[in-house]
Amino acid sequence: MENSNSSIEGNNLRVRKLELSDKSKGFLELLRQLTVCDSVSDKEFEDRFKEISIYGDDHVICVIEDEISGKIIASGSVFIEKKFIRKCGKVGHIEDVVVDAGSRGMQLGKKIVGFLADHARSMGCYKVILDCSDGNKVFYEKCGFKKKEIQMLIYSFWWMNCVLMMYY
Amino acid sequence: MENSNSSIEGNNLRVRKLELSDKSKGFLELLRQLTVCDSVSDKEFEDRFKEISIYGDDHVICVIEDEISGKIIASGSVFIEKKFIRKCGKVGHIEDVVVDAGSRGMQLGKKIVGFLADHARSMGCYKVILDCSDGNKVFYEKCGFKKKEIQMLIYSFWWMNCVLMMYY
Repeated sequence: MENSNSSIEGNNLRVRKLELSDKSKGFLELLRQLTVCDSVSDKEFEDRFKEISIYGDDHVICVIEDEISGKIIASGSVFIEKKFIRKCGKVGHIEDVVVDAGSRGMQLGKKIVGFLADHARSMGCYKVILDCSDGNKVFYEKCGFKKKEIQMLIYSFWWMNCVLMMYY
Repeated sequence: MENSNSSIEGNNLRVRKLELSDKSKGFLELLRQLTVCDSVSDKEFEDRFKEISIYGDDHVICVIEDEISGKIIASGSVFIEKKFIRKCGKVGHIEDVVVDAGSRGMQLGKKIVGFLADHARSMGCYKVILDCSDGNKVFYEKCGFKKKEIQMLIYSFWWMNCVLMMYY
Protein backbone atom coordinates (compact mmCIF):
# COMPACT_ATOMS: atom_id res chain seq x y z
CA MET A 1 0.00 0.00 0.00
CA GLU A 2 2.89 2.32 0.61
CA ASN A 3 6.65 2.34 0.68
CA SER A 4 7.23 2.10 4.39
CA ASN A 5 11.03 2.39 4.01
CA SER A 6 10.69 6.11 3.97
CA SER A 7 10.17 7.99 7.21
CA ILE A 8 9.52 11.39 5.65
CA GLU A 9 6.71 13.09 7.51
CA GLY A 10 4.65 15.80 5.91
CA ASN A 11 3.99 18.34 8.63
CA ASN A 12 1.14 19.90 6.69
CA LEU A 13 -0.48 16.53 6.00
CA ARG A 14 -3.07 16.15 8.72
CA VAL A 15 -5.92 13.64 8.71
CA ARG A 16 -9.39 15.20 8.69
CA LYS A 17 -12.94 14.10 7.99
CA LEU A 18 -14.26 14.10 4.41
CA GLU A 19 -15.92 17.33 3.33
CA LEU A 20 -18.44 17.89 0.57
CA SER A 21 -15.97 20.04 -1.33
CA ASP A 22 -13.49 17.14 -1.54
CA LYS A 23 -15.23 15.91 -4.69
CA SER A 24 -13.56 18.79 -6.54
CA LYS A 25 -10.23 17.96 -4.90
CA GLY A 26 -9.82 14.58 -6.58
CA PHE A 27 -11.45 12.35 -3.94
CA LEU A 28 -13.13 10.09 -6.51
CA GLU A 29 -10.00 10.00 -8.68
CA LEU A 30 -8.09 8.78 -5.61
CA LEU A 31 -10.66 6.03 -4.95
CA ARG A 32 -10.24 5.01 -8.59
CA GLN A 33 -6.71 3.92 -7.68
CA LEU A 34 -8.31 1.41 -5.30
CA THR A 35 -11.12 -0.05 -7.41
CA VAL A 36 -13.83 0.80 -9.93
CA CYS A 37 -15.13 4.26 -9.10
CA ASP A 38 -17.29 5.71 -11.83
CA SER A 39 -17.96 9.42 -11.99
CA VAL A 40 -21.08 10.64 -10.26
CA SER A 41 -22.89 13.96 -10.48
CA ASP A 42 -22.50 16.60 -7.76
CA LYS A 43 -26.08 15.78 -6.70
CA GLU A 44 -25.35 12.05 -6.39
CA PHE A 45 -22.19 12.81 -4.41
CA GLU A 46 -24.01 15.20 -2.10
CA ASP A 47 -26.87 12.73 -1.54
CA ARG A 48 -24.45 9.95 -0.58
CA PHE A 49 -22.42 12.34 1.58
CA LYS A 50 -25.61 13.27 3.48
CA GLU A 51 -26.72 9.63 3.79
CA ILE A 52 -23.40 8.76 5.43
CA SER A 53 -23.37 11.92 7.56
CA ILE A 54 -26.63 10.85 9.21
CA TYR A 55 -24.64 8.14 11.00
CA GLY A 56 -22.39 10.75 12.61
CA ASP A 57 -19.45 9.16 14.43
CA ASP A 58 -20.75 5.68 13.51
CA HIS A 59 -19.49 6.08 9.92
CA VAL A 60 -16.46 8.26 9.37
CA ILE A 61 -14.56 8.80 6.14
CA CYS A 62 -11.23 10.53 6.59
CA VAL A 63 -8.82 12.08 4.10
CA ILE A 64 -5.42 13.69 3.88
CA GLU A 65 -5.23 16.76 1.67
CA ASP A 66 -1.97 17.95 0.19
CA GLU A 67 -2.32 21.60 1.09
CA ILE A 68 0.15 22.65 -1.60
CA SER A 69 -1.58 20.95 -4.54
CA GLY A 70 -5.05 21.06 -2.96
CA LYS A 71 -5.54 17.39 -3.84
CA ILE A 72 -6.83 14.55 -1.65
CA ILE A 73 -3.94 12.08 -1.50
CA ALA A 74 -5.10 9.49 1.05
CA SER A 75 -8.38 8.22 2.43
CA GLY A 76 -10.07 5.50 4.42
CA SER A 77 -13.33 4.84 6.23
CA VAL A 78 -14.57 3.15 9.37
CA PHE A 79 -18.06 2.26 10.52
CA ILE A 80 -19.08 1.11 13.95
CA GLU A 81 -21.18 -2.04 14.15
CA LYS A 82 -23.33 -2.42 17.27
CA LYS A 83 -23.68 -5.98 18.47
CA PHE A 84 -25.30 -8.01 21.22
CA ILE A 85 -22.29 -10.27 21.75
CA ARG A 86 -19.50 -9.21 24.15
CA LYS A 87 -21.92 -7.43 26.50
CA CYS A 88 -23.48 -5.36 23.72
CA GLY A 89 -20.04 -4.68 22.27
CA LYS A 90 -19.05 -2.69 19.20
CA VAL A 91 -16.72 -3.54 16.30
CA GLY A 92 -15.02 -1.08 13.96
CA HIS A 93 -14.88 -2.03 10.27
CA ILE A 94 -12.16 -0.29 8.27
CA GLU A 95 -12.79 -0.02 4.52
CA ASP A 96 -11.38 1.57 1.38
CA VAL A 97 -7.92 2.61 2.58
CA VAL A 98 -6.00 4.15 -0.31
CA VAL A 99 -2.90 6.30 -0.74
CA ASP A 100 -2.18 8.16 -3.96
CA ALA A 101 0.50 6.36 -5.98
CA GLY A 102 2.52 9.56 -6.21
CA SER A 103 2.44 10.20 -2.47
CA ARG A 104 3.76 6.95 -1.06
CA GLY A 105 6.68 6.66 1.33
CA MET A 106 5.30 9.29 3.72
CA GLN A 107 3.53 6.88 6.08
CA LEU A 108 0.18 8.27 4.97
CA GLY A 109 -1.42 4.82 5.01
CA LYS A 110 -0.35 4.34 8.62
CA LYS A 111 -1.70 7.78 9.49
CA ILE A 112 -5.08 6.93 7.95
CA VAL A 113 -5.32 3.49 9.58
CA GLY A 114 -4.18 4.94 12.92
CA PHE A 115 -6.82 7.67 12.74
CA LEU A 116 -9.58 5.18 11.93
CA ALA A 117 -8.55 2.59 14.54
CA ASP A 118 -8.22 5.31 17.14
CA HIS A 119 -11.67 6.62 16.28
CA ALA A 120 -13.13 3.11 16.62
CA ARG A 121 -11.44 2.69 19.99
CA SER A 122 -12.75 6.06 21.19
CA MET A 123 -16.24 4.86 20.20
CA GLY A 124 -15.83 1.89 22.52
CA CYS A 125 -15.03 -0.85 19.97
CA TYR A 126 -13.44 -3.93 21.52
CA LYS A 127 -11.83 -4.74 18.17
CA VAL A 128 -11.24 -3.31 14.71
CA ILE A 129 -11.26 -5.47 11.59
CA LEU A 130 -10.60 -5.08 7.88
CA ASP A 131 -10.25 -7.24 4.81
CA CYS A 132 -7.24 -6.97 2.54
CA SER A 133 -5.33 -8.84 -0.13
CA ASP A 134 -2.39 -11.08 0.78
CA GLY A 135 -0.19 -8.38 -0.75
CA ASN A 136 -1.22 -5.81 1.86
CA LYS A 137 -0.90 -8.17 4.85
CA VAL A 138 2.58 -6.92 5.79
CA PHE A 139 1.45 -3.29 5.71
CA TYR A 140 -1.38 -3.97 8.14
CA GLU A 141 0.87 -6.04 10.38
CA LYS A 142 3.07 -2.94 10.65
CA CYS A 143 -0.08 -1.10 11.77
CA GLY A 144 -0.49 -3.65 14.57
CA PHE A 145 -3.08 -5.92 12.95
CA LYS A 146 -2.94 -9.72 12.86
CA LYS A 147 -4.39 -12.16 10.34
CA LYS A 148 -7.49 -13.83 11.72
CA GLU A 149 -10.12 -15.25 9.38
CA ILE A 150 -10.91 -15.41 5.67
CA GLN A 151 -13.25 -13.18 3.70
CA MET A 152 -16.04 -14.77 1.66
CA LEU A 153 -17.87 -12.81 -1.01
CA ILE A 154 -20.88 -13.11 -3.26
CA TYR A 155 -21.71 -10.65 -6.02
CA SER A 156 -25.38 -9.84 -6.45
CA PHE A 157 -25.45 -11.22 -9.99
CA TRP A 158 -24.09 -14.55 -8.64
CA TRP A 159 -26.83 -14.51 -6.05
CA MET A 160 -29.43 -13.93 -8.74
CA ASN A 161 -28.03 -16.94 -10.59
CA CYS A 162 -28.35 -19.06 -7.42
CA VAL A 163 -31.98 -18.00 -7.02
CA LEU A 164 -32.72 -18.66 -10.68
CA MET A 165 -31.10 -22.10 -10.44
CA MET A 166 -33.40 -22.95 -7.52
CA TYR A 167 -36.49 -22.16 -9.58
CA TYR A 168 -35.57 -23.38 -13.07
CA MET B 1 -21.89 -24.65 11.02
CA GLU B 2 -24.55 -27.21 10.28
CA ASN B 3 -24.88 -30.76 9.08
CA SER B 4 -25.73 -30.12 5.47
CA ASN B 5 -26.23 -33.86 4.75
CA SER B 6 -29.74 -33.59 6.04
CA SER B 7 -32.45 -32.08 3.88
CA ILE B 8 -35.14 -32.01 6.57
CA GLU B 9 -37.08 -28.77 6.28
CA GLY B 10 -39.02 -27.41 9.21
CA ASN B 11 -42.19 -25.97 7.77
CA ASN B 12 -42.85 -23.92 10.86
CA LEU B 13 -39.32 -22.53 10.92
CA ARG B 14 -39.56 -19.20 9.15
CA VAL B 15 -36.94 -16.46 9.23
CA ARG B 16 -38.12 -13.20 10.80
CA LYS B 17 -36.55 -10.03 12.18
CA LEU B 18 -35.35 -9.93 15.79
CA GLU B 19 -37.95 -8.75 18.30
CA LEU B 20 -37.40 -7.24 21.73
CA SER B 21 -39.08 -10.24 23.36
CA ASP B 22 -36.47 -12.60 21.87
CA LYS B 23 -34.21 -11.92 24.84
CA SER B 24 -36.50 -14.14 26.90
CA LYS B 25 -36.51 -16.77 24.15
CA GLY B 26 -32.83 -17.63 24.47
CA PHE B 27 -31.38 -15.22 21.88
CA LEU B 28 -28.29 -14.39 23.99
CA GLU B 29 -27.81 -18.04 24.95
CA LEU B 30 -27.77 -18.85 21.23
CA LEU B 31 -25.14 -16.16 20.54
CA ARG B 32 -23.09 -17.69 23.36
CA GLN B 33 -22.64 -20.75 21.10
CA LEU B 34 -20.85 -18.42 18.66
CA THR B 35 -18.58 -16.41 20.96
CA VAL B 36 -18.39 -14.64 24.32
CA CYS B 37 -21.82 -13.22 25.07
CA ASP B 38 -22.18 -12.06 28.64
CA SER B 39 -25.59 -11.54 30.16
CA VAL B 40 -27.01 -8.05 29.94
CA SER B 41 -29.94 -6.47 31.74
CA ASP B 42 -33.31 -6.02 30.05
CA LYS B 43 -32.55 -2.26 29.92
CA GLU B 44 -29.17 -2.79 28.22
CA PHE B 45 -30.75 -5.18 25.72
CA GLU B 46 -33.57 -2.76 24.96
CA ASP B 47 -31.16 0.17 24.55
CA ARG B 48 -29.02 -1.76 22.07
CA PHE B 49 -32.12 -3.03 20.27
CA LYS B 50 -33.31 0.56 19.84
CA GLU B 51 -29.86 1.77 18.75
CA ILE B 52 -29.81 -0.84 15.99
CA SER B 53 -33.47 -0.25 15.05
CA ILE B 54 -32.69 3.39 14.24
CA TYR B 55 -30.83 2.12 11.17
CA GLY B 56 -33.99 0.44 9.86
CA ASP B 57 -33.28 -1.73 6.83
CA ASP B 58 -29.60 -0.73 6.96
CA HIS B 59 -28.98 -3.06 9.91
CA VAL B 60 -31.13 -6.16 10.16
CA ILE B 61 -30.82 -9.00 12.65
CA CYS B 62 -32.89 -12.05 11.78
CA VAL B 63 -33.80 -15.13 13.77
CA ILE B 64 -35.54 -18.46 13.45
CA GLU B 65 -37.81 -19.40 16.34
CA ASP B 66 -38.77 -22.99 17.04
CA GLU B 67 -42.48 -22.44 17.52
CA ILE B 68 -42.85 -25.65 19.50
CA SER B 69 -40.19 -24.91 22.12
CA GLY B 70 -40.48 -21.13 21.80
CA LYS B 71 -36.70 -20.87 21.58
CA ILE B 72 -34.56 -18.90 19.11
CA ILE B 73 -32.51 -21.55 17.31
CA ALA B 74 -30.73 -19.59 14.54
CA SER B 75 -29.67 -16.02 13.91
CA GLY B 76 -27.55 -13.73 11.77
CA SER B 77 -27.21 -10.06 10.94
CA VAL B 78 -26.44 -7.86 7.96
CA PHE B 79 -25.67 -4.17 7.73
CA ILE B 80 -25.54 -2.09 4.60
CA GLU B 81 -22.44 0.02 4.06
CA LYS B 82 -22.84 3.05 1.80
CA LYS B 83 -19.80 3.83 -0.30
CA PHE B 84 -18.58 6.27 -2.94
CA ILE B 85 -16.86 3.61 -5.04
CA ARG B 86 -18.83 1.70 -7.70
CA LYS B 87 -21.03 4.71 -8.52
CA CYS B 88 -22.02 5.28 -4.87
CA GLY B 89 -22.51 1.55 -4.42
CA LYS B 90 -23.53 -0.40 -1.34
CA VAL B 91 -22.04 -3.50 0.27
CA GLY B 92 -23.81 -5.91 2.63
CA HIS B 93 -21.80 -7.19 5.61
CA ILE B 94 -23.06 -10.44 7.14
CA GLU B 95 -22.12 -11.05 10.78
CA ASP B 96 -22.79 -13.40 13.67
CA VAL B 97 -24.43 -16.31 11.86
CA VAL B 98 -25.17 -19.07 14.35
CA VAL B 99 -27.34 -22.20 14.47
CA ASP B 100 -28.20 -23.93 17.74
CA ALA B 101 -26.11 -27.09 18.17
CA GLY B 102 -29.24 -29.14 18.77
CA SER B 103 -30.98 -27.88 15.63
CA ARG B 104 -28.44 -28.63 12.94
CA GLY B 105 -29.14 -30.64 9.81
CA MET B 106 -32.24 -28.61 8.92
CA GLN B 107 -30.52 -26.14 6.59
CA LEU B 108 -31.24 -23.34 9.03
CA GLY B 109 -27.82 -21.74 8.39
CA LYS B 110 -28.58 -21.62 4.67
CA LYS B 111 -31.99 -20.10 5.39
CA ILE B 112 -30.42 -17.39 7.54
CA VAL B 113 -27.64 -16.57 5.06
CA GLY B 114 -30.13 -16.62 2.18
CA PHE B 115 -32.43 -14.21 4.00
CA LEU B 116 -29.58 -11.82 4.80
CA ALA B 117 -28.01 -11.92 1.32
CA ASP B 118 -31.43 -11.47 -0.27
CA HIS B 119 -32.10 -8.48 1.97
CA ALA B 120 -28.76 -6.93 1.00
CA ARG B 121 -29.53 -7.46 -2.68
CA SER B 122 -32.98 -5.90 -2.27
CA MET B 123 -31.24 -2.88 -0.70
CA GLY B 124 -29.16 -2.48 -3.86
CA CYS B 125 -25.87 -3.99 -2.68
CA TYR B 126 -23.55 -4.96 -5.52
CA LYS B 127 -21.88 -7.55 -3.26
CA VAL B 128 -22.24 -9.22 0.11
CA ILE B 129 -19.24 -10.16 2.24
CA LEU B 130 -18.53 -11.95 5.49
CA ASP B 131 -15.57 -13.23 7.45
CA CYS B 132 -15.39 -16.81 8.65
CA SER B 133 -12.97 -19.43 9.88
CA ASP B 134 -11.38 -21.89 7.45
CA GLY B 135 -13.66 -24.52 9.00
CA ASN B 136 -16.81 -22.75 7.80
CA LYS B 137 -15.52 -22.07 4.26
CA VAL B 138 -17.29 -25.09 2.73
CA PHE B 139 -20.61 -24.11 4.31
CA TYR B 140 -20.46 -20.62 2.78
CA GLU B 141 -19.37 -22.03 -0.57
CA LYS B 142 -22.58 -24.08 -0.52
CA CYS B 143 -24.41 -20.78 0.03
CA GLY B 144 -22.80 -19.44 -3.16
CA PHE B 145 -19.91 -17.47 -1.61
CA LYS B 146 -16.30 -17.58 -2.79
CA LYS B 147 -13.11 -16.96 -0.87
CA LYS B 148 -11.68 -13.55 -1.69
CA GLU B 149 -9.38 -11.77 0.78
CA ILE B 150 -8.02 -12.19 4.30
CA GLN B 151 -9.34 -10.63 7.48
CA MET B 152 -6.99 -8.60 9.67
CA LEU B 153 -7.86 -7.74 13.24
CA ILE B 154 -6.64 -5.61 16.10
CA TYR B 155 -8.06 -5.72 19.61
CA SER B 156 -8.38 -2.39 21.37
CA PHE B 157 -6.00 -3.38 24.16
CA TRP B 158 -3.35 -4.21 21.49
CA TRP B 159 -3.94 -0.79 19.99
CA MET B 160 -3.44 0.83 23.39
CA ASN B 161 -0.15 -1.06 23.67
CA CYS B 162 0.93 0.25 20.24
CA VAL B 163 0.13 3.82 21.30
CA LEU B 164 1.94 3.40 24.62
CA MET B 165 5.00 1.97 22.83
CA MET B 166 5.14 5.06 20.66
CA TYR B 167 5.31 7.35 23.68
CA TYR B 168 7.39 5.34 26.18
